[in-house]
Amino acid sequence: MDVEQMTALLDRHDFKQLKEELESMHPVDIVDAFEELDKKQRTLVFRLLAKEEAAEVFTDMNSDMREDLINALTDSELEEVMDEMYVDDTVDVLEEMPANVVDRLLMVTDEDTRQKINALLQYPEDSAGSIMNIEYISLRKEMTVADAILKIRQVGINKETIYTCYVTEKKRLIGMVDVKDLLTAGESRTIGEIMDENVLYARTLDDQEHVANMINKYGLVAIPIIDHEDCLVGIVTVDDAMLVLQDETTEDISMMAGVSPNEDSYFETSVFRQAKNRTPWLMLMMLSSTVSGEILGYYENAMAVMPVLITFIPMLMGTGGNCGSQISTLMIRGLAVGEIEFRDIFKVIFKEIRVALMVGTLLAIVNGIRICLMYDWNVMLALALGITMIAVVIMAKCIGCVLPLVAKKIGLDPAIMAAPLITTILDTCTILVYFNIVTAFFKL
Amino acid sequence: MDVEQMTALLDRHDFKQLKEELESMHPVDIVDAFEELDKKQRTLVFRLLAKEEAAEVFTDMNSDMREDLINALTDSELEEVMDEMYVDDTVDVLEEMPANVVDRLLMVTDEDTRQKINALLQYPEDSAGSIMNIEYISLRKEMTVADAILKIRQVGINKETIYTCYVTEKKRLIGMVDVKDLLTAGESRTIGEIMDENVLYARTLDDQEHVANMINKYGLVAIPIIDHEDCLVGIVTVDDAMLVLQDETTEDISMMAGVSPNEDSYFETSVFRQAKNRTPWLMLMMLSSTVSGEILGYYENAMAVMPVLITFIPMLMGTGGNCGSQISTLMIRGLAVGEIEFRDIFKVIFKEIRVALMVGTLLAIVNGIRICLMYDWNVMLALALGITMIAVVIMAKCIGCVLPLVAKKIGLDPAIMAAPLITTILDTCTILVYFNIVTAFFKL
Repeated sequence: MDVEQMTALLDRHDFKQLKEELESMHPVDIVDAFEELDKKQRTLVFRLLAKEEAAEVFTDMNSDMREDLINALTDSELEEVMDEMYVDDTVDVLEEMPANVVDRLLMVTDEDTRQKINALLQYPEDSAGSIMNIEYISLRKEMTVADAILKIRQVGINKETIYTCYVTEKKRLIGMVDVKDLLTAGESRTIGEIMDENVLYARTLDDQEHVANMINKYGLVAIPIIDHEDCLVGIVTVDDAMLVLQDETTEDISMMAGVSPNEDSYFETSVFRQAKNRTPWLMLMMLSSTVSGEILGYYENAMAVMPVLITFIPMLMGTGGNCGSQISTLMIRGLAVGEIEFRDIFKVIFKEIRVALMVGTLLAIVNGIRICLMYDWNVMLALALGITMIAVVIMAKCIGCVLPLVAKKIGLDPAIMAAPLITTILDTCTILVYFNIVTAFFKL
Repeated sequence: MDVEQMTALLDRHDFKQLKEELESMHPVDIVDAFEELDKKQRTLVFRLLAKEEAAEVFTDMNSDMREDLINALTDSELEEVMDEMYVDDTVDVLEEMPANVVDRLLMVTDEDTRQKINALLQYPEDSAGSIMNIEYISLRKEMTVADAILKIRQVGINKETIYTCYVTEKKRLIGMVDVKDLLTAGESRTIGEIMDENVLYARTLDDQEHVANMINKYGLVAIPIIDHEDCLVGIVTVDDAMLVLQDETTEDISMMAGVSPNEDSYFETSVFRQAKNRTPWLMLMMLSSTVSGEILGYYENAMAVMPVLITFIPMLMGTGGNCGSQISTLMIRGLAVGEIEFRDIFKVIFKEIRVALMVGTLLAIVNGIRICLMYDWNVMLALALGITMIAVVIMAKCIGCVLPLVAKKIGLDPAIMAAPLITTILDTCTILVYFNIVTAFFKL
């Protein structure tokens, strides 16, 4: 069912048909459709959803929609939704809501869940604890495979992931068993016999990106999270990891473009907020680029004697900036996916110098030919520009590869060393290199 | 065990101890360690691995290492490894190997597997078929839950993912059952009763990125893949989807920096190849930036009369370029994660004009103050620059948001419309706007 059909059924008040159609829709698609509906329509449709589906839709909505909906629902309706939600999702919802809404939501939650919620709310933002799921299956090593399967049958229906079960002893994590292994092992064997003792785990205070990267690196479905006493307290599942990685990448990409990162999507961010996210970098770079302007002013006389020099400025600044942003981007991404580390710095510089020599020479030759053709075979000019070009490319590649690595080393996010900042730094350097070479060459 | 300990044990020829230590290591970590070892050491360590582990290590290695290893192993050793590997992984390995190595690998593969391999090799690169896994559990709807669990027990041990089982009828996909549901349902119920008929699926020829995005969007563990006759032929699992998304993001980021994308990592790509990947864009942009140079040359006289105009060029070009790359980057990312679509174009332009007015005015004021302080309260100059600044920011934001959307619309990868290209286009426009405004203002 698409949005048109949905609104048509709503207009016709054909709720029976609508309810039936909704049953075959994926919650994610219902949320997509919600974006095209107004507040009233959304509430109507939401009330037609089955309990479980309603909870999933509620979890997937953006915070504005959710607030509207909470205001429209009665306490008992809200209670039904909250009962169906996973505790970690509830926490995510609460973190985004204004205080009065949080109070209302907590009021309709039972005491036991409220305690769990409070515990989860105490983990710092972006920590593994804040994204973990506290519903998982724990087994004891004395259990037989048959016992374990029975236990999963009894309690498993409420767990988000039961594909990996964790074996604990006095709450400490001592092993894990894949459901796959449970199903394929003999029923009378004990968990202690078939469990894998080499368990990869993370800690509650680990950075969520680190945990997501582990899941990705080792191809896991879930990773157990232990607290400071080595007790198992939750798991982080692969779908949460994918979202974390996607958000972190978006954050990196924003920073690489000189935009302060923002958790909301483009349309959810107001005009004022957009302006606020973009202005600091622009301001900084505008002011710092006056330095290159001043340096240009310093060489006014040279340009007065040889006005043609002006015409090469955009090309040289452009090429320098582009060379620098090429390599800084490769470095930032390499650091993000763990392919490059700080200790590779000399290997990288050596490689970049060779790349720069190749690229610079090629550009210098093509540019030289162009100058010869356009400026009556002024070979001296072609030569001076060629030397400048090679020098600029080498400089740009070296600065562009070193800065992200250094940023990482001193604990900054390497993503800030991308195009805007690198370009601004390189602009100044390029002008200095250019005029030093041409004034020496033409004795200006 | 870290690499130092590993080499120490190798040096001491303490293979017994080494073998023991290797057992507790994750294959991914063994591959990491391999990067620090030489060819001979790698082969030695590889021979000590347990069969299953050896297959996983072999799958995770990069192609250079793998080729070295294949050349060092005997046919029977190779056969053991190939027997343990999943067919889809084997295909990935074969696709990267030179023809003579492929022949050797196929020679040690049994006839049945060889046929499967050949079928998979026929799917186009980057299609769902090329990354799918052909080992999965299929059930019939007449089976009881107990039958199904028995079937999983019997055949499941060789399947990479059994967390979702698919229900087929004459090979056609008609439903799915989560292992979770199997374990929690009564043993005597039939699969037909408990199966979910709303199965999300993809087709063999769908783009792998599309399939990975579906897995991400709907939070799936695996997605079934059907062929042109609607027959179930394989599944794509979440860990493969994560790799696809990571590679596609790296590709986008490379393109956004004007580097031709490349499947190999930074260090695996030779200097020559690096130069080759980066030169085309640099060349194109160098040549096109001569246009801005020529335009600058055209305004030589204006600059001769008012040399101070030169000093503002880097600042204006920088700001224009940065404004444009900010918004083009946000657009490219928004398009990639599906938050923005072409039909939003007018909404985006309207929003950007308002953002640009805010940002431009703020920058113009700060810059105006700076000019007043540095140039003896030359208010006319501050005013002219202020108007230019606002005009440049609006122009940059509009061009920067429109080009990626248009690229997407006409079937190009929006990522090419990032910083390098946008900056080059904006350089020319900025100079034109600047000199048109100042020549009118100061009647030059």
